[in-house]
Amino acid sequence: MGKKARDLGIKIGKLPTGKKNCITDVKGVRVGHVTLDYELEKEGDYACTGVTAILPHGGNLFQNKVTAASYVINGFGKSAGLIQVNELGVIESPIMLTNTFSVPQVTQGTLEYMLDNNEDIGIKTGTINIVVGECNDSHLNSIRACPVKPEHAKEAIEKASNEAAKEGAVGAGKGMICFGYKGGIGSSSRIVKVENTDMSFTVGCMVLTNFGKSSEFLKENYISSNAQPESTISPTDGSIMIVLATDAPLSSRQLTRVIKRCSVGLGRTGSYFAHGSGDVVIGFTIAHDIQHSTNKVIESHTQLREDHPIMNELFAAAAETTEEAIINSLTQAETTTGRNGNIVHAYEFIK
Amino acid sequence: MGKKARDLGIKIGKLPTGKKNCITDVKGVRVGHVTLDYELEKEGDYACTGVTAILPHGGNLFQNKVTAASYVINGFGKSAGLIQVNELGVIESPIMLTNTFSVPQVTQGTLEYMLDNNEDIGIKTGTINIVVGECNDSHLNSIRACPVKPEHAKEAIEKASNEAAKEGAVGAGKGMICFGYKGGIGSSSRIVKVENTDMSFTVGCMVLTNFGKSSEFLKENYISSNAQPESTISPTDGSIMIVLATDAPLSSRQLTRVIKRCSVGLGRTGSYFAHGSGDVVIGFTIAHDIQHSTNKVIESHTQLREDHPIMNELFAAAAETTEEAIINSLTQAETTTGRNGNIVHAYEFIK
Amino acid sequence: MGKKARDLGIKIGKLPTGKKNCITDVKGVRVGHVTLDYELEKEGDYACTGVTAILPHGGNLFQNKVTAASYVINGFGKSAGLIQVNELGVIESPIMLTNTFSVPQVTQGTLEYMLDNNEDIGIKTGTINIVVGECNDSHLNSIRACPVKPEHAKEAIEKASNEAAKEGAVGAGKGMICFGYKGGIGSSSRIVKVENTDMSFTVGCMVLTNFGKSSEFLKENYISSNAQPESTISPTDGSIMIVLATDAPLSSRQLTRVIKRCSVGLGRTGSYFAHGSGDVVIGFTIAHDIQHSTNKVIESHTQLREDHPIMNELFAAAAETTEEAIINSLTQAETTTGRNGNIVHAYEFIK
Amino acid sequence: MGKKARDLGIKIGKLPTGKKNCITDVKGVRVGHVTLDYELEKEGDYACTGVTAILPHGGNLFQNKVTAASYVINGFGKSAGLIQVNELGVIESPIMLTNTFSVPQVTQGTLEYMLDNNEDIGIKTGTINIVVGECNDSHLNSIRACPVKPEHAKEAIEKASNEAAKEGAVGAGKGMICFGYKGGIGSSSRIVKVENTDMSFTVGCMVLTNFGKSSEFLKENYISSNAQPESTISPTDGSIMIVLATDAPLSSRQLTRVIKRCSVGLGRTGSYFAHGSGDVVIGFTIAHDIQHSTNKVIESHTQLREDHPIMNELFAAAAETTEEAIINSLTQAETTTGRNGNIVHAYEFIK
Repeated sequence: MGKKARDLGIKIGKLPTGKKNCITDVKGVRVGHVTLDYELEKEGDYACTGVTAILPHGGNLFQNKVTAASYVINGFGKSAGLIQVNELGVIESPIMLTNTFSVPQVTQGTLEYMLDNNEDIGIKTGTINIVVGECNDSHLNSIRACPVKPEHAKEAIEKASNEAAKEGAVGAGKGMICFGYKGGIGSSSRIVKVENTDMSFTVGCMVLTNFGKSSEFLKENYISSNAQPESTISPTDGSIMIVLATDAPLSSRQLTRVIKRCSVGLGRTGSYFAHGSGDVVIGFTIAHDIQHSTNKVIESHTQLREDHPIMNELFAAAAETTEEAIINSLTQAETTTGRNGNIVHAYEFIK
Repeated sequence: MGKKARDLGIKIGKLPTGKKNCITDVKGVRVGHVTLDYELEKEGDYACTGVTAILPHGGNLFQNKVTAASYVINGFGKSAGLIQVNELGVIESPIMLTNTFSVPQVTQGTLEYMLDNNEDIGIKTGTINIVVGECNDSHLNSIRACPVKPEHAKEAIEKASNEAAKEGAVGAGKGMICFGYKGGIGSSSRIVKVENTDMSFTVGCMVLTNFGKSSEFLKENYISSNAQPESTISPTDGSIMIVLATDAPLSSRQLTRVIKRCSVGLGRTGSYFAHGSGDVVIGFTIAHDIQHSTNKVIESHTQLREDHPIMNELFAAAAETTEEAIINSLTQAETTTGRNGNIVHAYEFIK
Repeated sequence: MGKKARDLGIKIGKLPTGKKNCITDVKGVRVGHVTLDYELEKEGDYACTGVTAILPHGGNLFQNKVTAASYVINGFGKSAGLIQVNELGVIESPIMLTNTFSVPQVTQGTLEYMLDNNEDIGIKTGTINIVVGECNDSHLNSIRACPVKPEHAKEAIEKASNEAAKEGAVGAGKGMICFGYKGGIGSSSRIVKVENTDMSFTVGCMVLTNFGKSSEFLKENYISSNAQPESTISPTDGSIMIVLATDAPLSSRQLTRVIKRCSVGLGRTGSYFAHGSGDVVIGFTIAHDIQHSTNKVIESHTQLREDHPIMNELFAAAAETTEEAIINSLTQAETTTGRNGNIVHAYEFIK
Repeated sequence: MGKKARDLGIKIGKLPTGKKNCITDVKGVRVGHVTLDYELEKEGDYACTGVTAILPHGGNLFQNKVTAASYVINGFGKSAGLIQVNELGVIESPIMLTNTFSVPQVTQGTLEYMLDNNEDIGIKTGTINIVVGECNDSHLNSIRACPVKPEHAKEAIEKASNEAAKEGAVGAGKGMICFGYKGGIGSSSRIVKVENTDMSFTVGCMVLTNFGKSSEFLKENYISSNAQPESTISPTDGSIMIVLATDAPLSSRQLTRVIKRCSVGLGRTGSYFAHGSGDVVIGFTIAHDIQHSTNKVIESHTQLREDHPIMNELFAAAAETTEEAIINSLTQAETTTGRNGNIVHAYEFIK
């Protein structure tokens, strides 16, 4: 099985990590995976895919929303729910990750889950906005067969826990490819301390990596093997989904500024945000409890002084966690065989 | 049955209409409706909803894409596919309209239709971007029951024709409410002539109306009855989907400019783009045939001289067709009964 | 001299106005005009232009900033300062209006004014962002001669008062043309009340109108004379600058949503946001005192519950004040003669 | 004097450079600098600043515009002209760079230059949009004294030539600081070849660097000296202006996609796009001659097939030239003394 990059001696950035070096270091954040790994009926067809659910907290997300933002680095992608996130600055559902053609079924399953838990939706109160990100795993997965079903989404949500999340070829990451090698799910976290106080904030990142050609990987930055042969796998439509969580009090405008910096971490691994790559960041902070119903006219929201140096620390944390989460998705992934016997090898990070 | 606003003596704008005064006046554009209208098992539950498909042309939309753009007037909505439309400036699928919670099933059905017609997708070539717009019809329709299935989407696509489209309480418009009265599907078109030439362009608009309180309707603009009582129906989450089609040669940047002007027509009816209203415009021009595969490195695209007066004529046409399509959705709709016996009355446009 | 539209019997919208029906109804907001009206040396050249300053409060705007937002309806324009307003969500200078080619000199004068009042800027603290909007008054004003100087900007700031502002052919409005008739400065305000409370908020709008062809004016909405001949004046590059002020507690994201609705008011007068028209909205709320320097790490900002009906009332107020301010710019303006003896007539709003 | 990074053995990226490794490798592009370097009257005050002009071609830019785009990486900045560039997708003036408080004077000078060369502007035809970028050089330059005058802008335009541009502490770069060391102007270029053809395109970049703390610089990527002491200079408001030129046929939408990738190069040097840093990219392609006046209704514009691999090559070229231009601004700059005797040292790139 794989290891975290740090356990291989790869150090990225300057800020200290959280205890689990995982998005679940942000208090209350939960991750659940459902992995599909079996032959399908039609010869050569194989389900090599899955669903990953990221929950901002363990309560009822529709009743208690979180401040959120999204940022499209490159819009060749089919994510669901981003328009409303940008207009209202909140997320009110689990954040789901899956393969491109499973977005409808995962949205359906998440919708059903939320309807089951909120009897008012669509009757006395309005609708609900489901957020889903995706990458194209068609090299290993029989994507046209749409093996992911609504119940897989529900199962991923129900299994979600605050433990250190599994990484690599798991959940939505099962069939993904990064820089020509086996990618998938990766995570990392950082602690930023406010100077001259005892205040600190946590930034956690989870990525679903499925981008890049082998020749683009800036492997010299990651004490990697020169003996590693170049991969010839070059998927047509790569992508990366980046989910950034924090407990820092930020308005959605401020959060948008923070998550834009995830692109710095992506660029440092070697990516140029390729034409066919849907590169999207979804961010949230757990700092505010935004209730669905209330009698209040005016609310008071905490936010950071924008000119305080901690803002730049958060920017750095966004970049560092994204970069390290990407490398973790590589170090943790194992060699995987999928449809038509296609094999994608794990990258070997040995000198 | 309903009539077109013009047949009631209501005249909107200054430009001449096309022959059918419908989006299908734009050459090759097709519209298909599937309407659901039946009791569901659970007592009081009723399917009062549907699907509407708008096809930029009758060929293979994935192989022959059209230049496109989208514009979010107010982002309280769950549309699918807009991010990629904005990044790449093309549409490669039918444009589907339905109710909010049916977006996943309609996306799934449209995806299956496109996969059936394009064996390469997900195997040798990349993915496909499905565009779906939605409004919340939960006052009349049992939206939680999700009665729309993938096959309804396929049926709407297959039924699509270039004839004058049905309007009112039909297709996706079956359960929609506009200004407290029965709304739904409306359409209109305009011909703009290039002065001192024999050139002319057609602009066609189709709307799915589900917005506005009765008190907001600027009915004095539309020779309507003073005797008409105010409606007390005030849906929580209104919305309007606007689809604008043209044959004018426009780049996606130019097209974005044109479709932004649809908001002028919406505002003139009385809307303030309410908080809970997902108001979205999707536009395309049939002027370019953008082939999915080609050996070319460089292509040449026609576009209008931006400072030519015809550009302002197109802006006016976008506003006029949107306004008239909205009014047509009211004049054409008939009184409709849905879930729990809820009734929404047709607006009476009689002096 | 001109009258307010209401004094002519023209009623726009449903909400009650503030006491002065002016942007200065928002507590502390100040307006100052400097008008240039004289022959220049070169024969036929004439200074028929000016500067208008809008101050969110009477204190030091750099030390005590206000929450702000901007929205570009149509970007054919040369405004200064909007990029930083959008990034940081604050305004820290007076909002200046002038003619297109005087943006540099007015920016310079405002910069000098702010430097004079803030010795730290550029020494111990950073820079300052000056906000300037513009319209092209070249039909009446010898715009190439750049008669506006930095001291005119300073004078406009220093003269600013909280009284009912002068409207029509005054300040930056001196040489502007609206729908082929004399336009310029107009203002209006609304009071929105929070139901079941004794809370209310004020929305004030000031416009600089310089857009539209005579044939586009929807004069039938404004009990205007049928005898009024059509104007043949059709400026190449029209524009409208809209400044919206409020005391409602709004985040910059919420404020952006509110000011987008100014376009509804603009559209209702007849505009289609013409190609050559730079149509820009700048908004601010005086609800927060955002100090330039502080020791705080975290601040708490008030904002409205976004789903409270008051939000839609603010949307309506934005549209209504914009529409009425535009009409006031017409009713208040007097017939004006400028360069080369060019005359622009006042519009006669008499039945 | 300084050297280019490549002459010091520093190699960045994989693509070959143009002949001059400068933005002037793009055919016809011209660069002109005016450097101010003298004591001012007030004791301690010093003019340590300048102006740099980048001309897309040597003809009349108003009469023959170029396709253009801009992209704001971080909007803490006071650039002029970007709103119209984004709306219309063209640049019609020289692109000017200077210090923050000189934007008005440089805009004024450029406006006067353009008016002198186009007698129609403001008389028979409309206005002109001037594009100016800026960074804050207040550590070395007495920015409050505004030593840059309109004539300096005109001089920079008139001096512009197609030769290899001077880099380092020259023109607008005279007083700038990068990573705590002397920065300023840097440039680089790349040639991208279309596989299986004899077609190739040139991408050239010029930067004005004034960003970053010493501790952020990823110096290990650039064979730099470990002996180099950390700089303690940490300007409050850093910034970087990036100008990207190409001859590849791109629509403004495509060009926007290309220039977004400049942020990858910036991130690779160590920047996190700091809060107070105005990081802006302005791009243009000389591929189209967009005439100000024409009788045409429809034009035909060339553009690249977006899915052709050359698009990704252009993305890489944008990132590589930005990164190398930044490093060149450091290697080329010499130790500089400015106001109050403040000294900023050149960075030593010797092992």
